[in-house]
Amino acid sequence: MRIREFREADWPQVWEIIQDVVRAGETFPYDPAMTEGEARVTWIEAPPGRTIVAVEGDRVLGTAKMGPNRPGAGAHISTASFMVAEASRGRGVGGALCRDATSWAKSHDYAGMQFNAVVETNRSAVELYQRHGFRILGTVPRAFAHPSRGRVGLHLMYLEF
Amino acid sequence: MRIREFREADWPQVWEIIQDVVRAGETFPYDPAMTEGEARVTWIEAPPGRTIVAVEGDRVLGTAKMGPNRPGAGAHISTASFMVAEASRGRGVGGALCRDATSWAKSHDYAGMQFNAVVETNRSAVELYQRHGFRILGTVPRAFAHPSRGRVGLHLMYLEF
Repeated sequence: MRIREFREADWPQVWEIIQDVVRAGETFPYDPAMTEGEARVTWIEAPPGRTIVAVEGDRVLGTAKMGPNRPGAGAHISTASFMVAEASRGRGVGGALCRDATSWAKSHDYAGMQFNAVVETNRSAVELYQRHGFRILGTVPRAFAHPSRGRVGLHLMYLEF
Repeated sequence: MRIREFREADWPQVWEIIQDVVRAGETFPYDPAMTEGEARVTWIEAPPGRTIVAVEGDRVLGTAKMGPNRPGAGAHISTASFMVAEASRGRGVGGALCRDATSWAKSHDYAGMQFNAVVETNRSAVELYQRHGFRILGTVPRAFAHPSRGRVGLHLMYLEF
């Protein structure tokens, strides 16, 4: 597996991953009716942001996007989002994407990375971020309507570089 | 003073308030180079969101916008932003806007209201929100570049209805 910048030819596979994640509805507060065009605008970042993929040959295993968390006076803090194809979970793809994203943000002089809405029942993501040094700064209770678990919390997670 | 829905004729005064707030750079993480068009898209909410003004006759004293904080599975939590004209501060305009926004959100069946980025040195705002029942759930340290105080924290504040 290697991590590289997103290329146009990756889009059909990236879109499939996004669709699966959005359809499952368990991890991202995205509109379930999101169109392909909306997904592109949401996921494919223009500079100063960046979108990457984890690939094995031509197969896209996962993808991440990153950039400033806020404009103006908040632009020195980065944010990122990660999605891993269902068939590729449990193989370290998320960890590789997370390492790449934090390295990129550090080398671009961001002061930290913030995740605004980590679903608390998404234990594998919460634990992965914690292993990479992120801390839960606060949790908005019952802020995410999980399809099977009802309303669960959204964590604000942060790593200062 | 009364609170009512934003009307097209209010825009020049609302834009002036936004410009002053963005130029001061002390309270909103907005791009200081924000154009009038970008400000309109940012501040004037289409349904299900809503933009209001506090007026005295034809004079706009302050303005607020509100709506769902996230799409999809997060859309049952509202958010809002408030700006008060410099000459009208200390007169309860912010409090009146805040009361109107939370009443609106409650009557539209939101489960709570979340403020994502309250600048910690903006004591009058933090205290006003606390008087209205909001709690600080967490603070991202040094996440806002204040023009005179350096990097200060951004509070995540929340009120569950």
